[in-house]
Amino acid sequence: MKNHILVPTLSHIRVTDPLFGSYIDQVSRQLLPYQWNVLNDKLPDVKSSYCISNFRIAAGLEQGHHRGAVFCDTDAYKWLETLAYCLQCGHGQELLPAAEELIALIESAQEEDGYLQTYFTVDHPDQKWKNLAEGHELYGAGHLMEAAVAFHQATGNETILQVAVRLADLICCVFGDAPDCCHGYPGHQEVELGLVKLYQLTGTQRYLEMARHFLRIRGQKPNYLMRELAETGDARIFPEFADYDEKYAQSHLPPVEQRTAEGHAVRAMYMYSAMADIARECEDEELKTACLELWRNVTEKRMYITGGIGSSGHLERFTTDYDLPNDRMYCESCASVGLMMFGRRMAALTGSAAYYDTVERALCNTVLAGVQDQGDRYFYVNPLEVWPDNCLPSTSMAHVKPVRQRWFDVACCPSNIGRTLASLGQYLYARDEKSLYVNQLISSTITEEIRGLRLHLEMQVSLQEAFRGDFQLELEGEGTIMLRIRIPSWLEYHSFTLDGRVIRPAVENGYAVLALSRPGVQHLVLTGHTTPRWVTANARVRADLGRLALAYGPYVYCLEQTDNGDNLAQIYVRPDAAVTVEAGDPTLPGTLPALRFSGLRLDSGVDGLYGTPRFRFTEQRLTAVPYGLWCNRQPGEMIVWLKALLPVMDHLIPS
Amino acid sequence: MKNHILVPTLSHIRVTDPLFGSYIDQVSRQLLPYQWNVLNDKLPDVKSSYCISNFRIAAGLEQGHHRGAVFCDTDAYKWLETLAYCLQCGHGQELLPAAEELIALIESAQEEDGYLQTYFTVDHPDQKWKNLAEGHELYGAGHLMEAAVAFHQATGNETILQVAVRLADLICCVFGDAPDCCHGYPGHQEVELGLVKLYQLTGTQRYLEMARHFLRIRGQKPNYLMRELAETGDARIFPEFADYDEKYAQSHLPPVEQRTAEGHAVRAMYMYSAMADIARECEDEELKTACLELWRNVTEKRMYITGGIGSSGHLERFTTDYDLPNDRMYCESCASVGLMMFGRRMAALTGSAAYYDTVERALCNTVLAGVQDQGDRYFYVNPLEVWPDNCLPSTSMAHVKPVRQRWFDVACCPSNIGRTLASLGQYLYARDEKSLYVNQLISSTITEEIRGLRLHLEMQVSLQEAFRGDFQLELEGEGTIMLRIRIPSWLEYHSFTLDGRVIRPAVENGYAVLALSRPGVQHLVLTGHTTPRWVTANARVRADLGRLALAYGPYVYCLEQTDNGDNLAQIYVRPDAAVTVEAGDPTLPGTLPALRFSGLRLDSGVDGLYGTPRFRFTEQRLTAVPYGLWCNRQPGEMIVWLKALLPVMDHLIPS
Repeated sequence: MKNHILVPTLSHIRVTDPLFGSYIDQVSRQLLPYQWNVLNDKLPDVKSSYCISNFRIAAGLEQGHHRGAVFCDTDAYKWLETLAYCLQCGHGQELLPAAEELIALIESAQEEDGYLQTYFTVDHPDQKWKNLAEGHELYGAGHLMEAAVAFHQATGNETILQVAVRLADLICCVFGDAPDCCHGYPGHQEVELGLVKLYQLTGTQRYLEMARHFLRIRGQKPNYLMRELAETGDARIFPEFADYDEKYAQSHLPPVEQRTAEGHAVRAMYMYSAMADIARECEDEELKTACLELWRNVTEKRMYITGGIGSSGHLERFTTDYDLPNDRMYCESCASVGLMMFGRRMAALTGSAAYYDTVERALCNTVLAGVQDQGDRYFYVNPLEVWPDNCLPSTSMAHVKPVRQRWFDVACCPSNIGRTLASLGQYLYARDEKSLYVNQLISSTITEEIRGLRLHLEMQVSLQEAFRGDFQLELEGEGTIMLRIRIPSWLEYHSFTLDGRVIRPAVENGYAVLALSRPGVQHLVLTGHTTPRWVTANARVRADLGRLALAYGPYVYCLEQTDNGDNLAQIYVRPDAAVTVEAGDPTLPGTLPALRFSGLRLDSGVDGLYGTPRFRFTEQRLTAVPYGLWCNRQPGEMIVWLKALLPVMDHLIPS
Repeated sequence: MKNHILVPTLSHIRVTDPLFGSYIDQVSRQLLPYQWNVLNDKLPDVKSSYCISNFRIAAGLEQGHHRGAVFCDTDAYKWLETLAYCLQCGHGQELLPAAEELIALIESAQEEDGYLQTYFTVDHPDQKWKNLAEGHELYGAGHLMEAAVAFHQATGNETILQVAVRLADLICCVFGDAPDCCHGYPGHQEVELGLVKLYQLTGTQRYLEMARHFLRIRGQKPNYLMRELAETGDARIFPEFADYDEKYAQSHLPPVEQRTAEGHAVRAMYMYSAMADIARECEDEELKTACLELWRNVTEKRMYITGGIGSSGHLERFTTDYDLPNDRMYCESCASVGLMMFGRRMAALTGSAAYYDTVERALCNTVLAGVQDQGDRYFYVNPLEVWPDNCLPSTSMAHVKPVRQRWFDVACCPSNIGRTLASLGQYLYARDEKSLYVNQLISSTITEEIRGLRLHLEMQVSLQEAFRGDFQLELEGEGTIMLRIRIPSWLEYHSFTLDGRVIRPAVENGYAVLALSRPGVQHLVLTGHTTPRWVTANARVRADLGRLALAYGPYVYCLEQTDNGDNLAQIYVRPDAAVTVEAGDPTLPGTLPALRFSGLRLDSGVDGLYGTPRFRFTEQRLTAVPYGLWCNRQPGEMIVWLKALLPVMDHLIPS
């Protein structure tokens, strides 16, 4: 039976949580104005994006050639999408003139037949749709569609919606099974997601069919993308893609037959998300099976404890099961955004709350780490261990930046983090025909109409060892609404009271289920227990063997040099080390605590480079901060996985 | 005062050691015939080298274009050099016809004016000397000179010597300070070494001056190579060199001002070797100071315990002090060959035996590991930890091969290892006007005339805990020869007897010094003690913190999967674990023992990907083999640095 779990109306949600609320505020206050300046090349100390300039050239308002990445139009689309979500949540109205200017520019840059990608319009009009592997036209189209739907929903703007419709209609003409159609598919998946959203908004069935078509023909033999690249020959857009292979773009097998996460992690996440969309919309059980297996492979064998994915420092790709090196990997911010997207869709497909454990893992750790607390600097790569000295240019560690950057040549992450934070409500709540789902225990409010009833919910949560979540529920109208509250895996114990009386709601699919029918205000309290916990990895994860990570609630903690000195590789900790929850550094956003514990610092006793060990420990009191907030103070070393001191030490010299 | 420590005549040395003797035998029996077939593209299952074919095209004997690497002529030169050393040692006569054929071909490929590099002769005659950064013409010239000198010394062949002389004369015309000369210098150093050898053979002073010139103008501002590359623009030979920088080719500073090892490790070693040559030949104290400092930086801060160098998996380069990751680095075989070259020259420059500790470290570990015991497969990259499953194509670990390869697109290492093993005598002995130096305790014989006396020495050494080296000394003539025997750092204790009587020779610069003047046969015995030892690294080496390596004599040992099971990252060992010396696997070459000890295998107790630790150790008896011999049996995982179990374990479950 088709599942109808949907994203609620974002405009009815407000995030009040001190941490996420602060970041969301920064999106409209800092991130969007900053990125608008970058897109317009107005900041002298930031590398040029050429984004708006390219649109102006394509629109005939400027002369010149396309500059910047082939896909850099999408930075503008995601900026617009981010603003749309801010507007839905009541922020960012001051940016509306800029948005309208941008929309007019996009419309002017669109060609007569609906074609839209400045790189090809300006400089390579004869190459349209002929280099799908590298050209990113369908990727750009998908981002445009997502932006258009969001902006239309926020403002009712028809112009941008019609731009998207014209482009979607063109794509439905150009691509397909007919002999005179292009039989290709996106080199970077994304259009499938845009087409589904456009279908959901407009009801135009052929958009859904086109998305399904792309998933159906992908990976068929002979491989379209590899044939196309062979024809492209030396005229590559990305000469450094010399080792492009079928797996890189998940075209090694038809998606429905795929069982392991392969290739470029962002491409994979966007495709799996589209597969979950199509599986739900079309009730496609085979596609659902593929989604379930791919999800399991990612989250049970190829995911970092921070929700990072993509173990290879080259080509941003998945590698092999349990290969999770902590310093040289990619863990691109966009890939964790994609993991959140995939997880939300899997929850909608299956009705299970468990997927939100992973959504939360990615959100609270890697995605949060991807952006500076001020909104204007970003990580692209998110390692779990950084030694700034070896992140040298022109080396195999050059991709790892020890501090957030102002912009990138490939600048997908900044706007992707922006749109994710701005639309956070879609990851907090969901609804179906009779239920409201509370998917994250993050302080917020929502008002939703279900079955003709109006439910206003105010959730106030604070992460402390004696965990407490307060839910003020105000119901208007006659009938019953089901309230489903996810019980997260990190909550060691839970109990509910309703207006002071203990209740014992059933737990279904990971949700505590309450039937609400009494009009007026009720007060629900969830209490439980969550303590800082030492976690380790499966023994097949060679990089983490004999190591411990510290987690508290959904947050993974790390040690930073600014709190603990340098050479954090020297630190050992006992698996039963007592951890105290203390006030966090007030300069960090939110109110998350610092965690303190005693560890030991190992000296090898070797003065030269190699020699006879004279191991010696000294005790050290250590301070851990949430990984998601690292590098918001003095930059330096950082480490998540600490060496476990497995037995009692007999080399201890009291400090 | 100028030092006159020289390489003795190789033809008077025979290596009788079961391990190195076996490898040296394989050089003429297997390696050279195999490589000759590869150079001639005669092996259907080996990638084409195009080497001889390019010479034939350049000589006008075939039609076609140059194929293969721009510098692949050097594979033929190094093949010839290797054969020359074999001939000097009495092997490989059956390859003389092939050598003569090759020499005739090289002579035919040389242009009228002396120019010689098939890539430019065949396809780019207008580009000669115009892309020194990438073209490798001077690199090729250096290898030709080294080969010519060696082959002339072995056979008296004048043809190849004259080819080298003509090319050297051309270079002395083309390059120099004069306004109409090219003011460039090699993009890959090597010609300096060839010029010095040609000078030493012919006495032609301008060859020495030209080598010195190249070292003098290198790194001056503005940077010649960077300007040249800017002019090359998109016509790059190596488009993947996009992040070529001044340091890559050690052109960031004049060599005499350099103090840290930077850039491509092989380029660096060849340059430092040439600097040491020039410092000695020209008694250049400033250059000597630079050599001393560079040596210290390499061996005290940037060298693996195996004598591997080059920590970056990208561009084969040095990175920063103490950055020594064990799995993703380069540690190119050629770089360790270069370290041996540098060390031998530093010993000649200073008279100190200590440099041979490092020469030995590189020889007995990385260089030995670089070649299969049968001589026909090679490692280019030499990691200290391999998990074959993650050495995947198109990832950041793709450069690491878990098994030796039959050939490479850049095939410098196979012939470099060949010429090093074939000329091993130059690393075992040295001489000056009054002394014979025994630099390695490796069984061998030498006959040398010094001060009109003839000394025949037979050294018989076996590595065992009760160490014993037997030296039979036969002296003919009147007078005194000084015998200097290096006391290696791994010999825990030493004493000498001469014809049964204890003697106490002075130790100078790391050499035990004996004055020999009694004609006839004497029997010198060196006894001492060497036990397997656990070694650790300086605490600044983050990758090795809390880890132990096992060494025995000059050999670093490792664990292989074939002896110890998979997932070697699980293994812990106590710093005081007793090690027994046992018979080695008889299928491995030589008679080096296996080392056995008890360790513990850690299970994390986590069934999923992350969870609550339930650490559990089981005891395991482990077998270590010499790192230099790894992967000569069943391929699989390998590890050098084992986790130290620092205190007594209280999680032990008896197995």
